[in-house]
Amino acid sequence: MNSSKKIAKESKEGEIGKVSPQIFEYKKSFVMSYGELSSLQIKYETYGRLNKDRSNAILVCHALTGDHHVAGISDEDERKGWWDHAVGPGKAIDTSEYFVICSNVLGACQGSTGPTSINPLTQKPYGMTFPDLTIKDMVSAQKLLLDHLMIKSLYSVVGGSMGGMQALQWVVEFPSFVKSAMIIAATAQHSAQTIAFNEVGRTSIKRDPHWNNGEYTSETRPEAGLAVARMMAHITYLSDKAMAEKFGRDLMIAGDEQDQKSENNQFTVESYLHYQGFKFVDRFDANTYLKLTKALDRFDLVGDNGLDENLKNVSAKVMVVGFTSDWLYTPSQNKMIAESLQRLGKNASYLEIDHDHGHDSFLLNSHDFLRLIKLFLKGENLVKPVHQESQKSRHSNNRSNVKKEADLKVISGWVKKDEKVLDLGCGRGILLEHLRETKNVKGLGVDYDSTKAAACISRGVNVYQGDIRNALSMLSDNSFDWVVFSRMVEELPEPGQVILDALRVGKRVAVSFVNHGYWRNRLHFSRYGSRITNDVYSEKWEKSHPLNHFSIKEFESFCNPSVELKKPFRLGRKVFHHGNWRTECRWIPNLRAGLAIYELVRV
Amino acid sequence: MNSSKKIAKESKEGEIGKVSPQIFEYKKSFVMSYGELSSLQIKYETYGRLNKDRSNAILVCHALTGDHHVAGISDEDERKGWWDHAVGPGKAIDTSEYFVICSNVLGACQGSTGPTSINPLTQKPYGMTFPDLTIKDMVSAQKLLLDHLMIKSLYSVVGGSMGGMQALQWVVEFPSFVKSAMIIAATAQHSAQTIAFNEVGRTSIKRDPHWNNGEYTSETRPEAGLAVARMMAHITYLSDKAMAEKFGRDLMIAGDEQDQKSENNQFTVESYLHYQGFKFVDRFDANTYLKLTKALDRFDLVGDNGLDENLKNVSAKVMVVGFTSDWLYTPSQNKMIAESLQRLGKNASYLEIDHDHGHDSFLLNSHDFLRLIKLFLKGENLVKPVHQESQKSRHSNNRSNVKKEADLKVISGWVKKDEKVLDLGCGRGILLEHLRETKNVKGLGVDYDSTKAAACISRGVNVYQGDIRNALSMLSDNSFDWVVFSRMVEELPEPGQVILDALRVGKRVAVSFVNHGYWRNRLHFSRYGSRITNDVYSEKWEKSHPLNHFSIKEFESFCNPSVELKKPFRLGRKVFHHGNWRTECRWIPNLRAGLAIYELVRV
Repeated sequence: MNSSKKIAKESKEGEIGKVSPQIFEYKKSFVMSYGELSSLQIKYETYGRLNKDRSNAILVCHALTGDHHVAGISDEDERKGWWDHAVGPGKAIDTSEYFVICSNVLGACQGSTGPTSINPLTQKPYGMTFPDLTIKDMVSAQKLLLDHLMIKSLYSVVGGSMGGMQALQWVVEFPSFVKSAMIIAATAQHSAQTIAFNEVGRTSIKRDPHWNNGEYTSETRPEAGLAVARMMAHITYLSDKAMAEKFGRDLMIAGDEQDQKSENNQFTVESYLHYQGFKFVDRFDANTYLKLTKALDRFDLVGDNGLDENLKNVSAKVMVVGFTSDWLYTPSQNKMIAESLQRLGKNASYLEIDHDHGHDSFLLNSHDFLRLIKLFLKGENLVKPVHQESQKSRHSNNRSNVKKEADLKVISGWVKKDEKVLDLGCGRGILLEHLRETKNVKGLGVDYDSTKAAACISRGVNVYQGDIRNALSMLSDNSFDWVVFSRMVEELPEPGQVILDALRVGKRVAVSFVNHGYWRNRLHFSRYGSRITNDVYSEKWEKSHPLNHFSIKEFESFCNPSVELKKPFRLGRKVFHHGNWRTECRWIPNLRAGLAIYELVRV
Repeated sequence: MNSSKKIAKESKEGEIGKVSPQIFEYKKSFVMSYGELSSLQIKYETYGRLNKDRSNAILVCHALTGDHHVAGISDEDERKGWWDHAVGPGKAIDTSEYFVICSNVLGACQGSTGPTSINPLTQKPYGMTFPDLTIKDMVSAQKLLLDHLMIKSLYSVVGGSMGGMQALQWVVEFPSFVKSAMIIAATAQHSAQTIAFNEVGRTSIKRDPHWNNGEYTSETRPEAGLAVARMMAHITYLSDKAMAEKFGRDLMIAGDEQDQKSENNQFTVESYLHYQGFKFVDRFDANTYLKLTKALDRFDLVGDNGLDENLKNVSAKVMVVGFTSDWLYTPSQNKMIAESLQRLGKNASYLEIDHDHGHDSFLLNSHDFLRLIKLFLKGENLVKPVHQESQKSRHSNNRSNVKKEADLKVISGWVKKDEKVLDLGCGRGILLEHLRETKNVKGLGVDYDSTKAAACISRGVNVYQGDIRNALSMLSDNSFDWVVFSRMVEELPEPGQVILDALRVGKRVAVSFVNHGYWRNRLHFSRYGSRITNDVYSEKWEKSHPLNHFSIKEFESFCNPSVELKKPFRLGRKVFHHGNWRTECRWIPNLRAGLAIYELVRV
């Protein structure tokens, strides 16, 4: 035990080894959304050790056809856990730090009570008489298990796909019980397309004569119908690109052209799907598939009241993660969850992992994804104090860091204690971390870059990975005290409109920019007729990206229009720095200042 | 008849009225890719009249489950044709101008010989003994029909989905017979994902006990299996968004919550799919579905030799059209066909229609799409002679037209007779039309904008609707004499690299740009520290899009590097215009010229 702990501390990955599942029997009646069970059992596994104050428990929730066996080698059948690469000593979910629990969901067929279980009242399998299920019922059953394990709060609840919906249900249902949640490749409601796919699978089962209204034995199961359902579903778990890479148009039988193209020859992708269907009927039950897919289709945290209403009591810190190639639970479906929480001012982030493997990406050993889980769990603790960062940058000769510091100093001075700040183009979250540490500011950063967004997560800074204009458009009026544009307005098309939208969302807007009217720029351009190249404008035109430069004069003219309609804001404080970006510049700024920082105040 | 002609000439849409299908019997043996038929019949319809020189025939090819009844009202069953909104007097495919033919494909079950037909040798239905089919076989059978109708060439062949694959096969198989083709929402080969979906459908049929290895009667058909196959396929014909809009999460039964959420209540999307499945088994045959989907999966014009090799003999003018929301035959699969043809220097265009309805968009009454078909068929005839355009622009006070003219004049002077020109950012295709009219130039335009790309089609100018960098990257080395950048380099990130890539594709590159070093710009900027606003720079910063301005000096410094590696090109001719963009400017151009046009020559 000691040695394994040591390994973990050095952050080398270890293995969990053999694990034994356990059974929790609940002998009382359990009321479900659409029925009641006279008793139930939950099969589960745990990894790592619960600490003394019982504050290190992490619940992992599995997907539709997953089970309680997350990690290690099962002593029942020698199988490796379905997320073994993510859960273990020193791994993303570090079992030398956390006590990890995973249970087979209620209604499933891998050991917890479900349609294949014997109904104590009839002594026959429940089959289709098992009550209609909801994700909420699954979570309620998990709560019974946690109560049984005497766990009073969860450090985190984590799940992908149907597991992500459970995690979401957890933070809605038991807000004070859950400190944080990772909702991965999930959705707040099944779309019409997803329901449609599920219904095709269900129809395939129900129209298999062996289904017999759910009354089948292990000898007469509707294997054909279930296999077709699984084959189809399997396509939705992958991406077009992943399938092209894995199978392409390869044929099973090589040989002459006639052989290759005969009716009986198969593409490898066909053979693979048949194998998936074949394997599946061996380990899964048709009635269970019907009940669980219906529970998924029924899941709807949007409903008539809207997502915001249903998420209004969430208090956990939430990270929602989507995968670019997931077309089952798309990035935008995932983003919708985070957007609602962010609109409500909750502690929430949205991250998007660029991965080719479609929905199943969350099950794969993706470095970026596993790192993100680790960063989120460690949260703020991982972070170096911000003054170290500043000190470092002071000694580096990088102008961009000097500039970050200039912004940080001025804007920090403007923001008051406990205010809310939206940082558009937040980079690695340095400003928001500093404001949190020094002024208890509640911040949300927005950045398109996934590496920068992950750095925000490592600082415990909430982030929306995506487009600035989308972020603004989803946020409510007046939901921030400050909106910060730190030297990024140059990258926006029609920036005037974006600034106006920022003034809808925030009471005050801080805009910092490089003053294009700076005398050196003018002098160089008028003398040579070419752009200046220096620390700020570092690339020649042929290596540059299009930018929308502007000067202090142009910015002020936008702010104080003479002919145009009156703007819904006034100019507040302004600070100009000389070309060195350190000393303040007090007169003729459009000629003499290199950097400008403005406050706009909504009127 | 006269009056209907008149209506057509005024381009008002008329109706075809009643149509009677006809039967063509071919009494000889027909050799197929994987078998032989001792005879065959083709059911078909025609609309409009064949002109005297038999040069106005258009063949329409139908999709997987479509049939010969394209337009009008069938006198067999009063059904409206599946493309009635596109085919008729004055419509996109104008039957007062063209003689339109559509036949049920070989192997189908709506009147042409297929698995449900009686095998004359056995006097029993072919069923699964019908030879394995290919798209090529379908086209060969269509050719027999056209021979029978004494049609010696097709003005055009048009088809969407499987019909698009037939159109593609036509231009490959009978290059001298086909003058033009519209390949719509199609692919040159089925992807692994598409094969996978088809295989699920086939498995559903084959594992239906009623299928009985294809030996079923009309009383014992595998209806369940076929219905499931259709339900699934139907999802792939729509888009997530279209389904969300049409069905959302609406339920069939309103009522209290318990009613709504009970197991028996259905989402409307489920009910809709069941209806689609139900309707389909009534009109379609399971063995036919197996044979036709296999023909689709087998279709592969890429193969071992690559698409370019297989398309090398195409001589028809081709327009490939993709739909943005089509995830079955994606825009990039469609684009791949056009890219290959364009790489080969063929007369080909790629257009993308922004439509939400997924693959089935091609069957819908979309104005933009139907207009495109009309423009393509009319081709060059619709176009006003280019000197009219120029004259018009001379009288308008629009600087952008003046400038287009300046470019046109200079670049037209440089380009020689019969050369090949790639125009990047081609706009409405005015330059390429002018070069074609005056110098017999073979041109390809590239523009991202769909309206501009459609305008190119109306001028008979080949166009690639898409990103300039993608267009360049797909084209072969040395495949054009000229690559033209007409005032669009400013919009590119890292333009130097793009220009170098253009010099790989073309021997010479013409770059025209607004000289940012022009004295008025310098004077204004140095005096006021703000950008100038005039005809060229028309927007204030707050309404501008990011741009990468540069001057003559900067461009020449890129072309004549002193420290950097030697560039693989030399500066050729250059022409500068004063700020009026009309008179030539001969000295101190970086100060005095408003417009610069350069020739770069590969060395």
